[in-house]
Amino acid sequence: MTIVVDAMGGDHAPGVVVEGALQAVRASGGRFSLVLIGQEDPVRAHVRECAGRGLTAPEHLLRIHHAPQVITMDDAPNAALRAKRESSIALGLSLQKEGSAQAFVSAGNTGAVLSASTLILGRVEGVGRPTMGALVPTATGSAFLVDAGANVDCKPRHLFEFAAMGSIYMSALRGVDRPRVGLLNVGEEKTKGNEAALEAFRLLGSSPLNFIGNVEGRDILAGRADVIVCDGFVGNILLKFGESVPSFLKARFLAYAGKSVKNRLIALIARGGLRSVLRELDYQEHGGIPLLGVNGVSIIGHGGSSARAITNMIYRAEEMILKDVNGLIRKELARSHD
Amino acid sequence: MTIVVDAMGGDHAPGVVVEGALQAVRASGGRFSLVLIGQEDPVRAHVRECAGRGLTAPEHLLRIHHAPQVITMDDAPNAALRAKRESSIALGLSLQKEGSAQAFVSAGNTGAVLSASTLILGRVEGVGRPTMGALVPTATGSAFLVDAGANVDCKPRHLFEFAAMGSIYMSALRGVDRPRVGLLNVGEEKTKGNEAALEAFRLLGSSPLNFIGNVEGRDILAGRADVIVCDGFVGNILLKFGESVPSFLKARFLAYAGKSVKNRLIALIARGGLRSVLRELDYQEHGGIPLLGVNGVSIIGHGGSSARAITNMIYRAEEMILKDVNGLIRKELARSHD
Repeated sequence: MTIVVDAMGGDHAPGVVVEGALQAVRASGGRFSLVLIGQEDPVRAHVRECAGRGLTAPEHLLRIHHAPQVITMDDAPNAALRAKRESSIALGLSLQKEGSAQAFVSAGNTGAVLSASTLILGRVEGVGRPTMGALVPTATGSAFLVDAGANVDCKPRHLFEFAAMGSIYMSALRGVDRPRVGLLNVGEEKTKGNEAALEAFRLLGSSPLNFIGNVEGRDILAGRADVIVCDGFVGNILLKFGESVPSFLKARFLAYAGKSVKNRLIALIARGGLRSVLRELDYQEHGGIPLLGVNGVSIIGHGGSSARAITNMIYRAEEMILKDVNGLIRKELARSHD
Repeated sequence: MTIVVDAMGGDHAPGVVVEGALQAVRASGGRFSLVLIGQEDPVRAHVRECAGRGLTAPEHLLRIHHAPQVITMDDAPNAALRAKRESSIALGLSLQKEGSAQAFVSAGNTGAVLSASTLILGRVEGVGRPTMGALVPTATGSAFLVDAGANVDCKPRHLFEFAAMGSIYMSALRGVDRPRVGLLNVGEEKTKGNEAALEAFRLLGSSPLNFIGNVEGRDILAGRADVIVCDGFVGNILLKFGESVPSFLKARFLAYAGKSVKNRLIALIARGGLRSVLRELDYQEHGGIPLLGVNGVSIIGHGGSSARAITNMIYRAEEMILKDVNGLIRKELARSHD
C-alpha cells in the first residue's frame, strides 16, 4: 500500500508534513510506504533535519517525488490548477490515477485538492457530486455535517447522495451503528422547507437509510442525528458561524471581567474551565476529512495541521483503503437505484 | 391613531396582553387608542382583574372587540386561517384593512400572523415578498438578519428587497446611519456562492444601498455588517442553531464541573458570569419584530412575551406609523427600479 503525502500542503509545510510522515512510517511497522511529493530540495533538507534528531525511516518506505510547483493557500483553486500543472497536488493525485499509489493526503488548499481530486480521480459509480463533510461536536458526541461547503447548488438527488456517503463514513470509519440521518430543514413536518428539501425528504424516506426526518438548526448541537444533511451553502455558513462562537464568547467574557473587580476575579478563576468548554466547540478537524465519492482516496486536512495531525491523516487514508469505503458507497448507491 | 392588539396571542394570553395594553395606554398620555381583539368574556375578566389592582385606562382609549375564534400556537398557519375566519388575527387585521386602525400587534402564531398580514393587508408597492428579520447580538452591538424564515425559496430580486427593507429598519427604527449591508455567502469574493447569491451580489452592488459585499458565517457575531441578507431557509437554520448554543455550553459546563471537586468549585464561582454572557446570545426578540413590506403595520412578538414585551410591541407599532416606514420602503424600491 502506497500513500502519497503532499509535502507542500499546509501553513507549516514542508516541515511538519515531513515530520508527520516520518512518525507514521516509524509507527506503522511497514504496513504502508509513503511518497512525499513536493519541491525536492526543501523536502530533502527537512528529512535530513529530522534525521539529525534521530527521526528516520527506511528508504524503501519513504520516497521523495519531485513536484516543481506549489499551489498556495491563497490561490484561486481552479485558476491555480490550470496554471500550475506540475503542482504537488496535481502530480500527487496523478500518481494514484496511474496506479502507483492508493491514496493522497494534503493539508493544502482545500478547494484545489477538492477540484483536482474530482478531475483526476473521477467519481465513484453512481455519485453525481463528491462531497466533504465536517465532524461537529454535539451534547452526546459528534455528528457529521455533510456537505460542508464543496457543493453550493444542490439538487435533491445530491442531498440524498450526501446522506448515503455520510452514513457510510459514520458507520465504517466512526463505528456508529445504523447512523441516524437528519435532513436539515426549517421545521420537523415533511411539508416544511425549500423545494430541494421537500424532494430530498421524499428520496430519503423511501431509501434504506436510517432516516429520522427533518432536523432543525437547534437539533445539531443537541445530538439528534449522526448525519446532518444540507447543501454546501448552508453547511459552510453554519460551520463558520459555529467556529466564531468561541471568540465572540471570549470577547464578551472579557467585557464582563472589565465591569468590576469582583467580575475580574470570577473571570480569572473561570478562565480554565471556559477554555476547556470552548475548545469543544472548535470545529477544526485535526485528523483530516476524506473527500467522499471520488474514485480513489483523498484526505483533506486543516491548513494549520501539526505533525501529529499529518500522521493521523495518513492513518485515516490507510483505513479508507482497508475498509473499502468506495466499494461500500458504490453498493449503497446501486441499492438505492434499484 | 388606533392600534389593534391580539388579546389571544402568546403563551400567556390573554392575561399578560391585557396588562401590557393597559400599561401602554396609561404611559402614553392619549397618543394612541387601543383595541383589544379576542374572546370578549375572558378579555373583559382580565380587564376587571387589572382594575382590581388599580390598573385602568379611560374607556375611549381601550376598547374590546369580540373575535370568537382563536388560532393556537400549534395550529398549521394556512389551514387555521381557512378554518377560523373569525379569529382574533383575521378580524384584527381586517380592522386595519377597512381603515378603523393603523397597526396590529400579536404575540401569537407567527406563521399565521405572517400569512394573514400579507393576505389581508397586501404588499407595499414594489415589494415581491414581505419579510421578517431578527436582531442578533454581535461583538459591537446588534445586526439585523433578514430573512429570518418567512421566505424559504428566494429569487435574487427578493434578497435585494430584504436588503433594502432591512436597511430602512436599521436606519429608521434603530438609528444606524447608512447601515452596512452584507450578503451572507460562502466566501468574500464576488465569484463565490450559489446562483441566487451571485445574482443578488450584482443587484446589491449596483444599488444605492451601503453594500459592503459578501460576508461569511464568521462575520455575523464579529459585527462586520448591520444588515445580514440571506434567504429564510439559511436564516431560520442559523438562528435556531445560535439559540441552541447556550444550552449546549451549559451542558458542557456541567460535565466539566462533574469531573473533579476543583472543577465543581470553579463552575460554582463562574456560574453568574457565564449566565450573564450567555444571556447575550439569546436571540429571542422581546420587543417584537415588524413584518416588513406589508401594506400596513403588523408587529410579531415572541410567544413567551411578558406584559412588558407587549407594551414595547405597541410602542414599536406607534413608531412604525410615525416614521412612515412603509413610505420609506416604497421610495427606496422605486429608486432602485429607475
